[in-house]
Formats: sequence, C-alpha cells, structure tokens
Amino acid sequence: MKVASSNQEGKRAAGESAACLIKDGMVVGLGTGSTVAWTIRKVGEMVESGLDILGVATSYQAEALAIESSIRLTTLSQHPVLDLAIDGADQVDANLFAIKGGGAAHTREKVVACSARKFVVVADESKYVETLSHPVPAEVLPFAARLVERRLKELGGVPVLRLGKMKDGPVITDNGNFVMDVDFGAIVDPAALAAKLCGIPGLVEHGIFDNLDELHLARRAGWR
Amino acid sequence: MKVASSNQEGKRAAGESAACLIKDGMVVGLGTGSTVAWTIRKVGEMVESGLDILGVATSYQAEALAIESSIRLTTLSQHPVLDLAIDGADQVDANLFAIKGGGAAHTREKVVACSARKFVVVADESKYVETLSHPVPAEVLPFAARLVERRLKELGGVPVLRLGKMKDGPVITDNGNFVMDVDFGAIVDPAALAAKLCGIPGLVEHGIFDNLDELHLARRAGWR
Repeated sequence: MKVASSNQEGKRAAGESAACLIKDGMVVGLGTGSTVAWTIRKVGEMVESGLDILGVATSYQAEALAIESSIRLTTLSQHPVLDLAIDGADQVDANLFAIKGGGAAHTREKVVACSARKFVVVADESKYVETLSHPVPAEVLPFAARLVERRLKELGGVPVLRLGKMKDGPVITDNGNFVMDVDFGAIVDPAALAAKLCGIPGLVEHGIFDNLDELHLARRAGWR
Repeated sequence: MKVASSNQEGKRAAGESAACLIKDGMVVGLGTGSTVAWTIRKVGEMVESGLDILGVATSYQAEALAIESSIRLTTLSQHPVLDLAIDGADQVDANLFAIKGGGAAHTREKVVACSARKFVVVADESKYVETLSHPVPAEVLPFAARLVERRLKELGGVPVLRLGKMKDGPVITDNGNFVMDVDFGAIVDPAALAAKLCGIPGLVEHGIFDNLDELHLARRAGWR
C-alpha cells in the first residue's frame, strides 16, 4: 500500500499506478495534464526495458512527452480502437462521472476515451468529491460564442471565457476554438446536464465524462 | 400568385419571396446556397433603393455575395440576437424539420438560425417531402473521424466522407473540419435522431434543423 503525503505525491502515485495496466502489444490513449504525465514517464521507463506498445496522444503536450519518453506514436485513423486510455481529471465522483478540460484538451481526450475498450482516470484524492461542482469546460466555435453563452445562462450556468496567460485574448484550443468555464454550482445530475450541453449549437464538446471504467485515486491511506 | 415552372425558377421565386420580410433597421442572417442567393441579390436591390439593414453571413460564399450586393455586414459578436435569418435547405417536411449542409455550411447556418428571433427557409418544391430521407451532413473533427464513423453506423447510418472536387482528399469546412454525408434511409423521427447525433464526441454539428418558423416554398401552382 502506497501513501500519498501531498497532492504532488498523490499525482505521482496515481499516475504511476496505472502503468501496470499496460501490456505488450497494446495501443494506448495518452492523456493530458500533470497526473497522467507521471503515467507517460513510467511507461517510457517500461518501454526502455522492452515493453512494446503504441500510443495515441490527446494533445500536443501528451505527444511531446511521449516522444521524449520514447513511446512510439500512432493515430486514431490507423488504430481506431484502442485497448486502453489513461487520463487525468479535474474532479471525479463516486458514480465515476468526471469533469475534465482544465488543460483545454477535453475534446480530443473524450474522443480518445470513447475510442478505447477501457478508460481509466488517474487522480490525487483532492479531485474526489461527493457531488461534482467544478466549472465545466466547454470548447466553443469562436463564431458561436455569444449564442453558446446565452444558452449556457439559460441552463443556469455562469460562463467565463478562458483567457490566455501567455497570449493576449482568449485561450485557443489545439482545434482552434475558444474555451468557456461554466459554473453550474453543485451538479446533482451530470448525465442530464451533459445531454443538455450536447444540444447547444456551436458547443463542440463539454467536459463532463460519463464513461470511466476505472478510477485510480491516490489517497493518503492507500488506493481506491 | 407566382408560378415556378422549373427548379431554377422555383429557387428564384422562393428566394426572392422572402426579401419582403426584411424591414428597415433589421439585422439579418444571410444563408448559403443557390436559393437564398436570390434572396441576397434581391435584398441588395432593396439596399440600393434605400433599405437600411445589417447582414450576418453564414459562410464565405454568403459574405462575398453580400459584399457584391452592397449589404453592410456585421458579426454575431456585435449583434448576438438577429431579427431574422433566411436560409435554404436540402430537404424540408410538413413538420418544418429540414436537412441542411449540402454546401458544408450547416454549422454556421445553425448558429445563425438559432441566434435569430425568426428563422425562415426558402426552397423550391423539389425539396419538399412527406418524410425526410436526404443523407444528413455531419461536420466532424478530423481527429475524431473514425470514432464518429463507428458511432454513426451504430445508429443505423451509412456515412460517406465528402470528397472535394476542386481539391484532393476530403472537403474541409469553413471551420477546418470534415463533412460526412450519412444515409439513414427514411427518417421517421428527426428529433430523436438529432438528439442521438448531438451525443457523438467529435461530431461538431449535424444537418437536422428543428427550429424553422416559416417555410417559403415555391410550387408550380403558387406558395405554401
């Protein structure tokens, strides 16, 4: 039993714990963010020890880290069905719903997760809650920003356009779109909210994930 | 009563008939395609006679035609609520459902239509059917093409990636994405199908429209 004594240690413990799921010959979706980065680094060590896998990156960040870690990359066009996808989350609940998109990569992350036979989320215990309440990231076509904003407000959300810190103006995703962080308060029925968000024209993808198969959560006192 | 003696005449008659809905001071969504092009040209003549309006274009094609027709353009960012949007359709039914996207512009068209207080479709009679059956265009993130293809097949559709005729490889939309034309046969419940399509990750927008307020249909024997 491992013990995580801080968020940083929790992230590392959770991230590395998922590496054991990866077996020779697998094609694996590689998530984005600081927790799953530990998975990717660990997998890189395993590859250097002889593990033979292919990876599919969910973002430029994941791609760069995979290359640095000597993981051979492929694409969803060549391998449309993955054996496994591993990713982080901004918040997860006991029903295995998650909110993702803090890294503005949730659209590709969702496509990769939905392309995998098994989707595993790794997170430190600070991400685990009874009821989801993290603002929901929404990727939005720039052309549709005002319409989407209005529709999100009609659903009771408070949308905030995410601004860049190393560029002027809004963050632009790897797909060329905006991100809005939408505060809905406590999300009692994430499936119902997800369905409503899907219906907004110009909202490319929202950050509510309902297809987790397994959660690797690093707690102070062990694993869940 | 006007008489349309051919599709081409029907398109012109239907397109021009909607111009009378445009009043001084309005902000108007300008659709894409050969029928609504007649609306735009007619509005251009009215502008030259003193009509004072602003237009919002749904595509580069609509923008170019509006400029050519001396219609002043604005954006959804400046005018997020339009008084009226006028557009064509590939197919319409008696319940005012429509299939759009033959011009690969349906995402922006839907955003514009949903931004308007009133959405009017203009079409010649050849577009009118009892039951929708036209292949449904779907705008798709290139990264997600294989996943979307699989999900569309699971819904009973036969998706075909739309290929360019003046470029090699797939058509690329004004938003930088692919288009798949998805044959579902007869679409008995377009609302149900629309909801299912909305839930596919990486499918940016489908071509089923459920928000028509008014249909201007040019028949051989008059207007509907």
